[in-house]
Amino acid sequence: MTEPAQQPDWIAADWGTTYLRVWAMRGTDVLDHRSVRKGMGVVRPEEFGAVLEETIAGWGPAPVMACGMVGSRQGWAEAPYVAAPCAAKPQLVRVPDHAARAVYIACGIRQDSPPDVMRGEETQIAGLLAFEPDFAGVVCLPGTHTKWVGVAQGQITGFRSCMTGEIFDLLSNQSVLRHTLSAQADDMDAFDAAVAEALDDPAGAYGALFALRAGGLLHDLSPREAASRLSGLLIGWELAATRSFWTGARVALIGSATLSPLYARALAGQGLQAETHAIDPVTLAGLNMARQSLGAFS
Amino acid sequence: MTEPAQQPDWIAADWGTTYLRVWAMRGTDVLDHRSVRKGMGVVRPEEFGAVLEETIAGWGPAPVMACGMVGSRQGWAEAPYVAAPCAAKPQLVRVPDHAARAVYIACGIRQDSPPDVMRGEETQIAGLLAFEPDFAGVVCLPGTHTKWVGVAQGQITGFRSCMTGEIFDLLSNQSVLRHTLSAQADDMDAFDAAVAEALDDPAGAYGALFALRAGGLLHDLSPREAASRLSGLLIGWELAATRSFWTGARVALIGSATLSPLYARALAGQGLQAETHAIDPVTLAGLNMARQSLGAFS
Repeated sequence: MTEPAQQPDWIAADWGTTYLRVWAMRGTDVLDHRSVRKGMGVVRPEEFGAVLEETIAGWGPAPVMACGMVGSRQGWAEAPYVAAPCAAKPQLVRVPDHAARAVYIACGIRQDSPPDVMRGEETQIAGLLAFEPDFAGVVCLPGTHTKWVGVAQGQITGFRSCMTGEIFDLLSNQSVLRHTLSAQADDMDAFDAAVAEALDDPAGAYGALFALRAGGLLHDLSPREAASRLSGLLIGWELAATRSFWTGARVALIGSATLSPLYARALAGQGLQAETHAIDPVTLAGLNMARQSLGAFS
Repeated sequence: MTEPAQQPDWIAADWGTTYLRVWAMRGTDVLDHRSVRKGMGVVRPEEFGAVLEETIAGWGPAPVMACGMVGSRQGWAEAPYVAAPCAAKPQLVRVPDHAARAVYIACGIRQDSPPDVMRGEETQIAGLLAFEPDFAGVVCLPGTHTKWVGVAQGQITGFRSCMTGEIFDLLSNQSVLRHTLSAQADDMDAFDAAVAEALDDPAGAYGALFALRAGGLLHDLSPREAASRLSGLLIGWELAATRSFWTGARVALIGSATLSPLYARALAGQGLQAETHAIDPVTLAGLNMARQSLGAFS
């Protein structure tokens, strides 16, 4: 975006299942940004190198720091999981056999019991700690598989993933509830009531799902209210499942402008004021930390 | 099946979303049976009459007693919901404008609070009561949307639907868990443990879903064990949600040979010996009761 003539000294890449997003960086300044729908899910193993070079064409020979599913077994090069508890600092592997430039991918994090994994979120957490090195509490990263991550003294102490985003999408688009839900889930009174209901009686909330359909048939429950209730029931359920993480804790949310406010609101109902962070700044800060650590192992 | 020369004196039809199943009946004897994949979901409104006549061709002019989604607003003729609490006896509407024969459809049942509906199950419950008029307890009908129905003194006192079957299908076939689940969910130790886990901590079970994926990645959790655990977690959750229905109650299961044993096993773990009934005999008995009641309102 600034002086196109300037060359980046490194390139940041967030390469997930659906998108490849890249930034031309000079220190912590963003010179340029591109996003293409060429996620790991649609790129064949032998194409990763070419897709990357095509996407960052014109940015010179700078090294690339990448995070996300590109480091999975089905990705470009497997960046093995580091076992938690572990330092909340990026660990990197270098992609072999890519002549065009040095490409590093951040390792994911695993937890043996209960079994859990993350890939991409560890970089965002490292970025949060770049801004707030003394952060102690829980980091919640809402998404398809929302993560709740305990952080203290620069360590990731443990974490838990909930499938809330994916379950919401499946139920609203593919189950019988699709007939009674709208795309808008912005009835905040219905959302609040459903969060409270699910937190109060998580088992009962399971039986409340079909009632969204029946309420539409019998009582003209509006599609907007039904969608808001579904969202509230699932997030309330998730809060009930992760209570040990957030009770009495400092909570930082890293997520989209759509999801983070819902989680913040649900937590506020429990008396917790969560801090919210946009995804891109912490991702870039995390990848920048990775770059700075390079001297140690490249 | 017996003497094809014999003419049925009535025809039973179970017309759901996916299948139309018909029986040529003489009293309570089945003379013939046919099943076609022409459920309500694929038949256009103006085609219902022709599809029925084609399916029962050669069975003479006998009247038809039908139950299921064919009576919904999107079906052939709307058979309105009867409000529970209500008698567990079939209520019928006659299909207008079908010259070929008399066709009756059983009304569904509604419950205003919490909102719930059934369509088809009411006929099976009436059939169960034909065999056991004094039944008092809960009838559980496992399926896409499993029903738990309180029955006492010939009345349906209240009910609750859980989306367990549909959620299991969506999670096993369309979520990230599809990578780690097999079609076989017959590891009964894993099933039992998961049922107990979800009953003990329904909220925690929500957090245990993604662990099925992570367990596959990290610990070679077998696809068969993962599928059994998913089935157990969902059924355990459902039992937690419906505890007020089955605690200390006589339980009758009406369901398929695949699903009923899972519910019976989960209930046995809670010290309840459920009676099990196959679907067809109670469906036919319920439709036969409907036929016998006809004198009263045709």
